[in-house]
Amino acid sequence: MILLQIIFTNVGNPHALGQKPLTFPRQVVALCQAPFLLDDPNVELVFPADAIARAKHYLSLTSGGLGAYSDAHGIPGIRKEVSEFIERRDGYPSDPEHIFLTGGASIGVMQILNCIIRGELDGILVPVPQYPLYSATISLLGGSLVPYYLEETANWGLDIVNLRQSVAQARSQGITVRAMVIINPGNPTGQCLSEANLKEVLQFCYQNNLVLLGDEVYQQNIYQDERPFISARKVLMDMGGNISKELQLVSFHTVSKGYWGECGQRGGYFEMTNIPPKTAEEIYKVTCTSHSPNVPGQIFLGLMVNPPKPGDISYERFVRESKGILESLRRRAQIVTDGFNSCRNVICNFTEGAMYSFPQIRLPPKAIEAAKNAGKVPDVFYCLKLLEATGISTVPGSGFGQKEGVFHLRTTILPAEEDMPAIMASFKKFNDDFMKQYEDYGGYLRM
Amino acid sequence: MILLQIIFTNVGNPHALGQKPLTFPRQVVALCQAPFLLDDPNVELVFPADAIARAKHYLSLTSGGLGAYSDAHGIPGIRKEVSEFIERRDGYPSDPEHIFLTGGASIGVMQILNCIIRGELDGILVPVPQYPLYSATISLLGGSLVPYYLEETANWGLDIVNLRQSVAQARSQGITVRAMVIINPGNPTGQCLSEANLKEVLQFCYQNNLVLLGDEVYQQNIYQDERPFISARKVLMDMGGNISKELQLVSFHTVSKGYWGECGQRGGYFEMTNIPPKTAEEIYKVTCTSHSPNVPGQIFLGLMVNPPKPGDISYERFVRESKGILESLRRRAQIVTDGFNSCRNVICNFTEGAMYSFPQIRLPPKAIEAAKNAGKVPDVFYCLKLLEATGISTVPGSGFGQKEGVFHLRTTILPAEEDMPAIMASFKKFNDDFMKQYEDYGGYLRM
Repeated sequence: MILLQIIFTNVGNPHALGQKPLTFPRQVVALCQAPFLLDDPNVELVFPADAIARAKHYLSLTSGGLGAYSDAHGIPGIRKEVSEFIERRDGYPSDPEHIFLTGGASIGVMQILNCIIRGELDGILVPVPQYPLYSATISLLGGSLVPYYLEETANWGLDIVNLRQSVAQARSQGITVRAMVIINPGNPTGQCLSEANLKEVLQFCYQNNLVLLGDEVYQQNIYQDERPFISARKVLMDMGGNISKELQLVSFHTVSKGYWGECGQRGGYFEMTNIPPKTAEEIYKVTCTSHSPNVPGQIFLGLMVNPPKPGDISYERFVRESKGILESLRRRAQIVTDGFNSCRNVICNFTEGAMYSFPQIRLPPKAIEAAKNAGKVPDVFYCLKLLEATGISTVPGSGFGQKEGVFHLRTTILPAEEDMPAIMASFKKFNDDFMKQYEDYGGYLRM
Repeated sequence: MILLQIIFTNVGNPHALGQKPLTFPRQVVALCQAPFLLDDPNVELVFPADAIARAKHYLSLTSGGLGAYSDAHGIPGIRKEVSEFIERRDGYPSDPEHIFLTGGASIGVMQILNCIIRGELDGILVPVPQYPLYSATISLLGGSLVPYYLEETANWGLDIVNLRQSVAQARSQGITVRAMVIINPGNPTGQCLSEANLKEVLQFCYQNNLVLLGDEVYQQNIYQDERPFISARKVLMDMGGNISKELQLVSFHTVSKGYWGECGQRGGYFEMTNIPPKTAEEIYKVTCTSHSPNVPGQIFLGLMVNPPKPGDISYERFVRESKGILESLRRRAQIVTDGFNSCRNVICNFTEGAMYSFPQIRLPPKAIEAAKNAGKVPDVFYCLKLLEATGISTVPGSGFGQKEGVFHLRTTILPAEEDMPAIMASFKKFNDDFMKQYEDYGGYLRM
């Protein structure tokens, strides 16, 4: 029996696949954890002066260091740094009072959905395929998921006609659709929404009185130049008029993705736009039940929105490290897409952003039959065979939702770049053999 | 106008009131945040060798350092350290598979209540007065809080007769009582439950088919020798027989309390005893929605259950620091109790454990009337006057629940020991003046 090495491409967890943490933020947080070092004459032998200064800055924003609870919605000084980042990014002022720091973006999504969903007749529009945080949370909170399908043939674009149909159908079932989720860049689908598309979405939400939840956690992960990330908030503000003053929007971000990949630190935020003060107060009460988000995670967030600047001692290293990660991810996105498209019966849209590839696997009827005989969903059957044969661990498309009779899988693009060609070759060998085995001409072929 | 310094005795947040973090755990976590230091020849100039070894140990338990998600229920190696701690504490084996690490005890409580409460007819027995996490979470989850009153005249003891009455009354209203919460040592009441009392509680839960939730986050905070902390689990195991194999118990612990006070790090765990595997699986699914608890918090928890041992370089310093905190808290518990009992119309049970004092304030009828005229609940009125006059920020007893017509406030015992006499003198002056002003003989007295 040969023991395979498992290649975990099933979770967007970069450090688990060998991505090194950025040095500067780790230095700052390490110093914040060990404030007694700040008085140690030897500290400059192991930490650069700008990291020491930054640690002092963040400690001064806390009320008692990393061991003290902060405000339930986060340290005011860091919320201010987040608002300045948003202002620089979008060109519109942002109010720290409308920013809540959270222990990762997921916690924020759960808190907001908790405030929106009152019962099973409250519906949330969610893209399909979708990252299952949304389906799981809506189900846990006892609401209704209202699916809208992304168009695979249009590189997973969002068609407003589909949205209208989904809402009409939900309403005919007595459901009050209260909010809409967009994931931009897409998870698992990797598309970047265009400005025109975002405008349509915002108008649609406004007409239908929906809160828009903008999951923008992959905003730093962009692998092409044609469609840069643009925030839902910027598009909304650009639109001007009543919609920009009335449409309710909550945007989410995190330190877990981007070139940071600091998943284990659990740091994130959400920003509320046009949320009425009374509602914001209720959201604040919900956040209070779980005390403050973890303070080190808040400091990582501060560092993400306020990285070293030109002229700082650590600036060059920081830029070198982050560019290295991002450029490698861009090359990996291409290697993975090309690899999948070179396989028999596999077609794959290019990963424009985020960290995933979501190829369609055209399973022959005999493979579907074999899966049925094995008591498995067809794409689960395929992914298990893939795992057994190659050690590559992926997530079947049925975990994200897909159209009836169409099958996918999700991989991350996170394995080390030097391992990528071998992984894709291993995948291709498995897939092409699998397809030969189950294809309908000539029946069963020996492999 | 004189600007008062606000003295925040309203939250159990030790570091915010100047308590210094323990050095060794901070050194270890700082090194885990900065793993590149482990190869730095200068590292031994600023970190002791056992902290370096411990950091390497914890990093080896992670799958990618502090930046990688762990398992949703925590790092297996740290769950093992927790189980060994429980085994040493209770004298009975503990299974790491039944231990879930959480981002603080509150998150664990919320996850468990989420699995217990199906709707408004599911009731949870909760002590009154109680730490409002329970009332808030039950209300958020749409369940019913079933109160049982603690006996102030019996030093906040738990009377089984009260429990029976509470359950009978809830049942008469169609409520299915499904679980019971104990907080031991008590928050806000500070009592330590005796072994005999715990036995009665366990038997009561067994007879009534209730899950027992044991909030034991203050287990290290004990300020007398007569009634040491004893875990609900140990008492259950000591009882033997069917009850020890069948009664369902979930126990909670944290790094936020004890002599650690690392609230901002958000580290905790719960241990499940006799929870059926199917249920544990469902609980696991709930924890998965919010990914892993923050990894630095998990490492703090590992350090709490596995502190330096005799012979380790850092042992003496660790013991000196932790004993210093605990002994000072013991003295402060006495200063606060004595201080309150020296005040007019105030009676106060001794803080046997935890971090709070919960004196009863016997408000004269005229004070109650004045509160009513000001549109305030009487104890809120009193606490606001106290804040205005002295800067001492407390929580009115009505925030925790109390019997009709009886009034309290909660303070922590956390202000620095050297400040304590002045704070209590300031309180006494305010209180005694307040009482004179509102007492019924001779009407209004000038102060």
